[in-house]
Amino acid sequence: MIVFYHTEIAQPTVVLTPEESKHCVKVLRKKVGDIIFLTDGNGIMAEAEITVATPMQCVVQILRREEVAARNIRLHVAVAPTKNMDRMEWFVEKSVEIGIEEISFIICEHSERSKVDLERIQRIAISALKQSQTALLPKIQVINYEYFMKQTSKIECGKYIAWCDQKNSEEFVNEKLTDGEVLMLIGPEGDFSENEISLARSLGFKEIKLGNRRLRTETAALYSCCVVAMKNTIMG
Amino acid sequence: MIVFYHTEIAQPTVVLTPEESKHCVKVLRKKVGDIIFLTDGNGIMAEAEITVATPMQCVVQILRREEVAARNIRLHVAVAPTKNMDRMEWFVEKSVEIGIEEISFIICEHSERSKVDLERIQRIAISALKQSQTALLPKIQVINYEYFMKQTSKIECGKYIAWCDQKNSEEFVNEKLTDGEVLMLIGPEGDFSENEISLARSLGFKEIKLGNRRLRTETAALYSCCVVAMKNTIMG
Repeated sequence: MIVFYHTEIAQPTVVLTPEESKHCVKVLRKKVGDIIFLTDGNGIMAEAEITVATPMQCVVQILRREEVAARNIRLHVAVAPTKNMDRMEWFVEKSVEIGIEEISFIICEHSERSKVDLERIQRIAISALKQSQTALLPKIQVINYEYFMKQTSKIECGKYIAWCDQKNSEEFVNEKLTDGEVLMLIGPEGDFSENEISLARSLGFKEIKLGNRRLRTETAALYSCCVVAMKNTIMG
Repeated sequence: MIVFYHTEIAQPTVVLTPEESKHCVKVLRKKVGDIIFLTDGNGIMAEAEITVATPMQCVVQILRREEVAARNIRLHVAVAPTKNMDRMEWFVEKSVEIGIEEISFIICEHSERSKVDLERIQRIAISALKQSQTALLPKIQVINYEYFMKQTSKIECGKYIAWCDQKNSEEFVNEKLTDGEVLMLIGPEGDFSENEISLARSLGFKEIKLGNRRLRTETAALYSCCVVAMKNTIMG
């Protein structure tokens, strides 16, 4: 099964983007009559037959569409971008594979990086989407911590913050997560500032631990994806 | 807290390796009288005071030793090395952070790679060990699949195999893991061969799923580390 990405697959005939066309016809050597799959990254997976196969413009006819069910527990990870961007790109790839609905790169007081190449991140997310054959591309944004936190006060969801020096807080895996959205804050390498932590407390964020190891920023972020993936697959 | 690695920390005075000495004195600018921590990667974490601080030879005096408790559920991941070795190096770094006791790189029928630079992998594992401030360096080996499987028949442990096309097998996260060792087999990009799967079945390996997504080899391997880490932290 080979999955391609296209934002508009509602109409009966779809023209793949030049990039996807090249991948389909040149790299994968697909021909007229071959069956491929398309996703809009928005929950729809479509089966399609190739009607025109040129490297610049591959045209397909949609045979059937299927809506992939959303997860019961949906995860929004707000993480401070690491100094080394490779680590964030790795997190984006892996989190799309394992499952994530939204990623916010939050710029914190101790952030060692304030710029994120969203276009590049988007490309990485899309290729992970195709690779893992899922139909859900996470929403991705870059946003200032305080501004982000003010917005969260309007959102109804389970709110958690993981930071290094917390002592007696509970394990995230032991949390009873109800269906709906879970928002997890992961701090920068220099950790959250005191102000940032008290702001989170004042907004009702619960401090939790992600295992008893000291995890890097990107590892902590992915660990929270694994916890939510498991809670979604655990029986009963 | 800064952790260094040394295989012999039983004696009262320890001379760091030239590499570790350089890291301690040149990079981190540690001086005589400073306190550092040493681990042998074998469960011992020691607090030590620097008595000689030269970039080629840093000498420390051990103040106290602490044995870090082993995990109740210990994980041995046997994974076929990926064609792109970066992905395996990433897995080693992350699995040491999250927790793993043993890694076996198994050479399978469909393996796209039969060579692994164990020295380089070892260096990556050690730097992850220091970074995550744990005291347990996993045992790492490269071994032929059939030979490895014959050995496992002698080992008393929970035995699992994850492969792509399995249909009705259960979720690993729903397994009741008892204290002791768990052995997880993760196949190559081209998946296990029929022969390899039947050999595993004949040796009592249980087929399980790692979530309902299609995960890359290294992602599946890390996901199993996360499941075991969580089972070790779940209450009761």
